[in-house]
Amino acid sequence: MKTRAAVAFEAKRPLEIVELDLEGPKTGEVLVEIMATGICHTDAYTLDGLDSEGLFPSILGHEGAGIVREVGAGVTSVKPGDHVIPLYTPECRQCKSCLSGKTNLCTAIRATQGKGVMPDGTSRFSYKGQQIFHYMGCSTFSNFTVLPEIAVAKIREDAPFQTSCYIGCGVTTGVGAVVNTAKVRPGDNVIVFGLGGIGLNVLQGARMAGANMIVGVDINPDREEWGRRFGMTHFVNPKDVDDIVAHLVALTDGGADYTFDCTGNTTVMRQALEACHRGWGTSIIIGVAEAGKEIATRPFQLVTGRNWRGTAFGGARGRTDVPKIVDWYMNGKIEIDPMITHVLSLEEINKGFDLMHAGESIRSVVVY
Amino acid sequence: MKTRAAVAFEAKRPLEIVELDLEGPKTGEVLVEIMATGICHTDAYTLDGLDSEGLFPSILGHEGAGIVREVGAGVTSVKPGDHVIPLYTPECRQCKSCLSGKTNLCTAIRATQGKGVMPDGTSRFSYKGQQIFHYMGCSTFSNFTVLPEIAVAKIREDAPFQTSCYIGCGVTTGVGAVVNTAKVRPGDNVIVFGLGGIGLNVLQGARMAGANMIVGVDINPDREEWGRRFGMTHFVNPKDVDDIVAHLVALTDGGADYTFDCTGNTTVMRQALEACHRGWGTSIIIGVAEAGKEIATRPFQLVTGRNWRGTAFGGARGRTDVPKIVDWYMNGKIEIDPMITHVLSLEEINKGFDLMHAGESIRSVVVY
Repeated sequence: MKTRAAVAFEAKRPLEIVELDLEGPKTGEVLVEIMATGICHTDAYTLDGLDSEGLFPSILGHEGAGIVREVGAGVTSVKPGDHVIPLYTPECRQCKSCLSGKTNLCTAIRATQGKGVMPDGTSRFSYKGQQIFHYMGCSTFSNFTVLPEIAVAKIREDAPFQTSCYIGCGVTTGVGAVVNTAKVRPGDNVIVFGLGGIGLNVLQGARMAGANMIVGVDINPDREEWGRRFGMTHFVNPKDVDDIVAHLVALTDGGADYTFDCTGNTTVMRQALEACHRGWGTSIIIGVAEAGKEIATRPFQLVTGRNWRGTAFGGARGRTDVPKIVDWYMNGKIEIDPMITHVLSLEEINKGFDLMHAGESIRSVVVY
Repeated sequence: MKTRAAVAFEAKRPLEIVELDLEGPKTGEVLVEIMATGICHTDAYTLDGLDSEGLFPSILGHEGAGIVREVGAGVTSVKPGDHVIPLYTPECRQCKSCLSGKTNLCTAIRATQGKGVMPDGTSRFSYKGQQIFHYMGCSTFSNFTVLPEIAVAKIREDAPFQTSCYIGCGVTTGVGAVVNTAKVRPGDNVIVFGLGGIGLNVLQGARMAGANMIVGVDINPDREEWGRRFGMTHFVNPKDVDDIVAHLVALTDGGADYTFDCTGNTTVMRQALEACHRGWGTSIIIGVAEAGKEIATRPFQLVTGRNWRGTAFGGARGRTDVPKIVDWYMNGKIEIDPMITHVLSLEEINKGFDLMHAGESIRSVVVY
């Protein structure tokens, strides 16, 4: 079949909208019509050539929502017509990681996903006979895409695609970091470093979990208004204080129970750790750091009871937890609509990247 | 009153055995006759002038066992004749930390303890009219010492002083790191870096907790026999393998559930983190690093699910947990006797430091 898609032919070049050839689903695979997709910093990171493992030509995009249109042999958990969110972190429920009950980092198809192909080692996309790579196992910048059955979360049919697609990455990453990784409880004090899309979702996750102080930290004063909209109780601009760690420790009477880095800056990651409460405070790294950068601290920080952790896809098991987050959205426990600042057509997708680079969007979404 | 003691008059000088003046216990304090005391690396660290906060002249020693001889006004939890272990980490049961239920790092007397004095700001020790500082709130290198009531753990009277004194620091630090901080469970795989006294106690803690693989890592091949005596199932000498992290990850089928650094070497601390299992492995820093040294890693290690933590005094609440560890020893769940490699008189205390520096002892104990 044919599908309209935005192709990344090479790094540092705008995406091109073309008509591609798409092979139908093989055994254990499903064909999904993508109805909407967010444009995430990770897509830009790859397109900008910063990911040394980035593959071209490829179809980027990993934050989508759509409808199953066809299923391959052996597929039992979804059927044509089901609404789904593609999962760049699949959930096979069979591998050592899934069975451990201690992580969401399913390893079933990790090797082939990293190589830009389906689990059988081949791509479903081609253009004029040339193979086009899949991306993060999703490739949502194509109107139709093929996914392994274990990489789709079935969601309720009354959830709008234009907003629920954001649950495919940003919302789950931020809210999940609070709920699944930190397991924030009522009364806990929380500090969030970096109030972009992820940070705002951490804020609203903390609000939902009943946190006490929810402190937002950003060097951009315009983010204060955004933060307060999603539950932030205190705002600190590091430019306004001498020693950001000492300031935050004093503000939270000894440090926060949980801190979250949503900046990707390794210096900030250290500040986030050191702003944790002695004895039990836990800092969670969400942001992806520049290649080659390392985090550092004095071991004394850990010996005196601080914990340094990280999270990927918000610690969420895709097929199990993503549908719950969709419920939380539909039930009003979390908000998404105000975060979707721009709605674009596929033809306007490069504008979405420009808006993100300029810091002018929280989330731009392409609607097919 | 008078007491015989080994005084550290200044850094980098042998201890001197003298007769000191000791004031009796004030309100909330107890006088303890120390019956035995271990000589720990931390005493040597201070005596060698490596601790920038070390105070002189002082009475070192923090790993003792003895008998309460007198109590000050208001003391209710112990009485003369009770057997006790002094606690450099007290347990007031009243401060924010104690009440959190999430840490053993009681803060009730932290400020004065760090200044080498009792909670009222004064010292009980003097020599020829000159004040002598307390050390870590214990000063067990004195035959008699005064301690706050919240800094003694009452223990059973049938426990021999010569071995149970080791529970005052090394045993609790190692066994407690497994039981209280890591909470190792049956079937978990564990790697222990550094098989000195702490490392051996981590090994036997893991054995008691029912761990599956208990891997010991040390550059000294003589430690293999020691390790196997306390539950080690596999020994790895980093000098015998190309890439210690890759070797350990392969040995443990993906990495250990828990790793413990007992070396104080920040390079080893990084290896310990990176030898943890992706998704859930936790590395616990026990060793105290050289001043100014920092730990570092790529944040990717944490984002993919490894946890970096630390522990002090094995996460044990002194008055609550130390008596339990004495029970475990008396019931044969853990061993101490073979670790006490040298028993000395107070006059021989400097020999104990020499043995430790030469790596010839696991633990030297002074018996009064």
